[in-house]
This record gives sequence, C-alpha cells and structure tokens, in this order.
Amino acid sequence: MTVTLEQARALDAADPLRPLRDRFALPEGIVYLDGNSLGALPKATPERLHGLVAREWGDTLISGWNKHGWIDAPQRVGARVAELIGAKPHEVLVADSTSVNLFKLLVAAAKLSDRKVLLSESGNFHTDLHIAAGVADLTGLRLDIAPRRQIEKRIGSDTNLLLLTHVHYKTAERFDMAAVTARARRTGVTTVWDLSHSAGAVPLQLNRDGAELAVGCGYKYLNGGPGAPAFLYVAEHLQQRLGTPLQGWMGHAEPFAFTDDYRPAEGISRFLAGTPPVLGIASLEGGLDTFDGVTMERLWRKSIELFDIFYACMERHCSALKCITPRGPDQRGSHISFRHPHAFELCQALIERGVIGDFRAPDVLRFGITPLYLGFEEVVLAVDCLADILRKETWRDPKFAVRLKVT
Amino acid sequence: MTVTLEQARALDAADPLRPLRDRFALPEGIVYLDGNSLGALPKATPERLHGLVAREWGDTLISGWNKHGWIDAPQRVGARVAELIGAKPHEVLVADSTSVNLFKLLVAAAKLSDRKVLLSESGNFHTDLHIAAGVADLTGLRLDIAPRRQIEKRIGSDTNLLLLTHVHYKTAERFDMAAVTARARRTGVTTVWDLSHSAGAVPLQLNRDGAELAVGCGYKYLNGGPGAPAFLYVAEHLQQRLGTPLQGWMGHAEPFAFTDDYRPAEGISRFLAGTPPVLGIASLEGGLDTFDGVTMERLWRKSIELFDIFYACMERHCSALKCITPRGPDQRGSHISFRHPHAFELCQALIERGVIGDFRAPDVLRFGITPLYLGFEEVVLAVDCLADILRKETWRDPKFAVRLKVT
Repeated sequence: MTVTLEQARALDAADPLRPLRDRFALPEGIVYLDGNSLGALPKATPERLHGLVAREWGDTLISGWNKHGWIDAPQRVGARVAELIGAKPHEVLVADSTSVNLFKLLVAAAKLSDRKVLLSESGNFHTDLHIAAGVADLTGLRLDIAPRRQIEKRIGSDTNLLLLTHVHYKTAERFDMAAVTARARRTGVTTVWDLSHSAGAVPLQLNRDGAELAVGCGYKYLNGGPGAPAFLYVAEHLQQRLGTPLQGWMGHAEPFAFTDDYRPAEGISRFLAGTPPVLGIASLEGGLDTFDGVTMERLWRKSIELFDIFYACMERHCSALKCITPRGPDQRGSHISFRHPHAFELCQALIERGVIGDFRAPDVLRFGITPLYLGFEEVVLAVDCLADILRKETWRDPKFAVRLKVT
Repeated sequence: MTVTLEQARALDAADPLRPLRDRFALPEGIVYLDGNSLGALPKATPERLHGLVAREWGDTLISGWNKHGWIDAPQRVGARVAELIGAKPHEVLVADSTSVNLFKLLVAAAKLSDRKVLLSESGNFHTDLHIAAGVADLTGLRLDIAPRRQIEKRIGSDTNLLLLTHVHYKTAERFDMAAVTARARRTGVTTVWDLSHSAGAVPLQLNRDGAELAVGCGYKYLNGGPGAPAFLYVAEHLQQRLGTPLQGWMGHAEPFAFTDDYRPAEGISRFLAGTPPVLGIASLEGGLDTFDGVTMERLWRKSIELFDIFYACMERHCSALKCITPRGPDQRGSHISFRHPHAFELCQALIERGVIGDFRAPDVLRFGITPLYLGFEEVVLAVDCLADILRKETWRDPKFAVRLKVT
C-alpha cells in the first residue's frame, strides 16, 4: 500500500521498534538506505573503541591479550553472530575478510570428495567468483558458472562444491537454503553459503536448514564498521574432518608452545590464521549489541512492512524504474533494487539531496532496508525525492555522471 | 659498559631522541620491554581513531570510502612502511595478517620455477613453518626444515623457495639479507623474508639488498595496536609476474565493475584480497607517525647503546642468565634474550614488579629494545629488579608458575 508522509509518521510513532534507532548516531538530514553496504555507526561504538585503545592497549599493553579477552575475541564474537544465524556458539568464528574465509572453506571442503567441479552462479558477487577461480586453479577443480535458473540442473555426478550467495547482492533474490542444501547433499554435493546480505537482514536457521559451511560480512547489516572482520561457519559434524589451507598459528592446537609441527586446534578454532584484528572485532561486537533484545523474526516483520510501502510508493510515483527484487518475502532479502538506464546519475542526484542509496553496475539502483534504524517516513521521503528528480530531470546535470573510485 | 642508575639518568637527559618518548602514552611505574610483542600506544592514536569512527564513519557513512581515502589506505600506508624498509612506495601494501600475506607470496612465488623444495629454518617462528607446510600440501612442494647453520648448505638444485625470518623472534640473530638473497638467487632460488622483528627495529634496505619478497608485522615495532594488519613487499620487477592465490575483489583491475572474470590489478594492488580493515590500518598509520623526523639509522644507534648497557649490566649482576643474542650489531635485531631454566617464573616475577618482558618456550626470557620510547634508566632498573629477584629467589613463589593463555 502507498502511504502519505503523514501516515508514515504515524506508523513510526506507533512502531514498537522505533526506539532501536536511538542506538545509532545518524547524521541529521540524511535518509540512509545503504546499510547493506556499510551499516550505520552504533552510538556506543566510539566509547567502546576509545576504552579498548586508551585503557586496554594503553594501560595494560601486552597483558591485554589475557586481561581483556582479546585472545578469545574471534570465538566470543563468533558466538554472538551464531545467535543471529541459527548456529551453535562454537560453530562460528570472526576472522579475516569474507574473501579469505571463503578461500579457506572452499579449499578445505574440496577435499571431502574426488569430484572435480566447483559450481557457482554467474552474476554472483564477484569476489566469490574470483576466489572460486583461484581455488579452482590451485586445487585442480574446474569452475562452472551457470545462470541462476540453471544452477540446480547443472549439478551432476562430477559436482563437488556448490557456492551460492544466499541473498543476491544486486536483486536481493533469496535461495531456499534448506531445499537447495538438501538437494545438493542428496547428490553428494557440499554447499558453501555466502551470507553477506543475509546475516542481520533476514531470519536464518543454519542448523535447522542443514547448512554445512558459510561465510559472511561484518560491515553491512551487522554494523561492524568499515572493513570489519568477517565470519565463517562450519557445522559441528564437519569441523574435525576439515583442515584450513591457511595454517596460521592461531589455528594451532597450542599456539604458544612454539613447535615446528602444525597440529590443528580442536573444533572451529582451527580456521583461525593470524593474530586476531582486535580493534575490528571490538567494533563488530559493538555492532552486534545493536541487536540486543530483539529477534530477527521481529526485525524481519518490520523489514517486510518497509519494503511493501517502498514498493507501492515507487510503483505509483517512480514507474520509470523497474523493480528487480521479488515481492514475496520468502523470495528475497532486506533490500530493494530497481533498474533504470540512468541509475548511476539518479543515485548521484539522490545523494546530493541526502538520500543515500547505491548504484550497482551497469544499471541498478539499490536501497538497503535496515529496520533497526530505518523509519517509514524516510521511505516515503526517499521515494518523493526520487519522483521529484525524475519529474524535473535534474539527474541530467552532467555533474551527476562523474564516476568516483567507489560507487 | 655497566652504568649506575645515576649515569643512566644522565644519559637520558643528554639523549637527543628522548623527546620521542612523549609521542607515547606509557603507564606510570612500568618498564616496558615488550614492544617487540605489542608496541606501545602512540598518544595521538585514540583521537585519530575517534575521529575515524565518530566523524568519518558516523557522519559520512558509505561515502567515507572516497571522502576519507579509506579505499586507498592499503597503498597509502604501505608507502609509509616502504620508507622504513628501503623499498619503493608502490612495492608495499598493508593488508591481512602476516600469516595470510606469507601464504599469498609463497604460493605465488612457487610458480616461478618447477623445483620442488621449500626450504626453511627449524625453530623459525612457528606460524611461518605452519603456513609453509600448508602451502607445500597445496602446491605439491616438499617442505625441508633445516637447522640455521645448515640452511645454506641445504640449498640444492631442487630448491625452489627459501623462507627465512630476517631477525629471529627468540635469539634476535639476524641474517645478512644481501648475502643470503644473492647466494640463493645465484642458484635459482627465490627468498621470502619475514620482517616481523626487523621492520621499525633495524635499518632495512630491501631494494639495495636485492630482496624480492617480504612480509612483516604491524603491531610490534610499528606500534599499530593489537592485531594490526600486516604488510607485504613485492619487488617491482616481480609484480606483474606473480598472481595471488587469494583472488579477492580488492585485487581486481576494476573492483567496482562487478565482472564475473578475474583480472588482476596492475602492480602491488593485485595482492589485496578482501575489503581493507579500515580501523586497523588507521591505527597502524598512527603507529608509523611515531617515526616521523627520525631515521632508522639514528634509532638503531640508540638501540645499540641500550643493548650494550643491558648486556654489560646483566653480565655483571645476573650472570645466572646466559645471553643467547649475538653481541655484534650486524648479527642481531633490537631485542636481547637470555636462557634460564626458570625463565617463565622469572618473567612472571618481573611482571609483578612492573618490568614487562616476555617468555618464549621453553626457557627464554626476552626483552624488546624500542629506542623510540625506551630510556637508559629503564634498562638499569630492569636489570636491578631481576638481580634482586635472583638474589632473594622470589621467583620460587609457586604463584609465578601459573600459566596463562598467552605468555
């Protein structure tokens, strides 16, 4: 349904989740629809980091590793991520980047079978495809990249690994995790899920859905800050069967015994490599605190309401843009995307007016829906602003065509 | 020469480098001799990080990637490291951990030749050996681990890569980078140097010394903070010939073109994998600022003076401990280590009295010499304290035998 600005304000006033917004430091006059690229700053994070730096590092120096639990941060904060994705606390680790974690899991899982094909989706987020190509080169697998609709048909007797992004970064299309994992499993294929656009965005039940391996991003919906460390998930039953190719000391059974021989730690810790990035993990821990006291199911209900209003208002006021995100909540994640030949310029024109969405090449305008801090009024304001830009054709100003390094 | 406390104070008062200590926030009453494990906190770092978090992330959100140069941080801060190690600005990158960077370079360099042996030193820092073992498994190389004195003899016609830590983490023994690299090179062997205990500790001239590949740590002498990102160095002439196995999007020629196919960036940037850890890099940048206006050669001169006094005072007052660090400045790095059967307990007893060194299994007591913030008086105080502990045998108190997680 479309709503007026007044109705949207009333919805905000009546929204029991509205107080969660106070957990964030959002700049005045901005409608932030890019929390799926970089989550907003939690209000408590500057003080948390200041304490870590000035008091923990500054005052306790090297002993901070024990005194302040730095050494256990990957597991401790991993357990917090586990709560949000339906995993056991000891199945998740915070470490490295999504790309590096994906590399670890693909190389490790490839050894579970002699089969020779690593299957993924064309148009998958490109780092996943690039990492997969590197893994294929290194392990002698063949990378097979198929269009989304053909993925399941392409699974064959030579398929070893299936690498899928649960919610597509561009269209927000969502795979049915339980169904895909089970069908792959039945034919002897291990699925690796990328949850970068799912974790903190949609309700996830990795254990219930039979997921075995997954990675995800810390700086999007989890509000961990720019370049926050990522996470990885390895189902309990696989942990002792898999070994990481990145055999760093932090994944050793006895990191401080200083032995020449590598012996992997029991359980999830073996997937650690180097020294934990303490600042980044602390910032991610602050991001996870913004989820305290609210379930992903409840957040997702609000996300659906925001999406439906966004969709309806766009359809009425901005019909030149074609929505490429499925409407059904089970078919999608928590962002909404539109196609327009001048999506880049429209995005820049919106940014100039304080509405921050993002552009994804070649022609997609993407808006993140983050119910922790996004309100109904902002959705209506964003659509009104875009309608105005379209009506007045202000996006045709050549200044909006200037490309920046990161877009 | 041994000096008295009074003489040491006079040396501090006359030391032209003494004002550099004011760049650090050191806790009162502590003698910090562990800057080679975790560098001290630069005074400017808390404010720098607060600005990054509150103003850059908080106020500019996603546009911080362009506005505040987050996206170029790996190269920009890499160029700062390059100044300290005698490399060109575009030969160094800040990224990931030392372990992960080592993995990248070993796998990449292995392809330069068909030879089948990866040679390293027994008792090398263990993460290097563990990573090397993982690389060997993955690439079909054979890992050959030889005692230090036999390394050069072991180089044979089947040797592909030589992995050495320039300054040994335990003994501080230093390899002659130019000589070893040249001899290896003549027999067709590529050397990969780990500079974790060298960068910011001893003068390095990677270009002059013919070094081709190196990695190093950001949180020791570079003062980057707990778990700071590491760096990697690839000599200009090798950059286009090497490809990283960790083919992440940040190493792509066009990271924001979102293409399925991987095409490596020109130059050093191809060795990036995931999204840069912005907080960690900023903290490392703050650490590098503490070197402003002073050359490594000048710092090294002070390090030698501190070492000589440390050595002489220990010899006179603590002769039960046997120094395992070579005395000649050209043969060693910037720490001094001693062997004692009860090194662990001695280390704990020192810590209780505010003298922070560290223990390295099984029997080594290690003291970092960081001329940016360490004074002559502190060296004398540390030795006096240890002499007192030995004389009174206070280290025999059973509480000093309790092992912590990180030691």
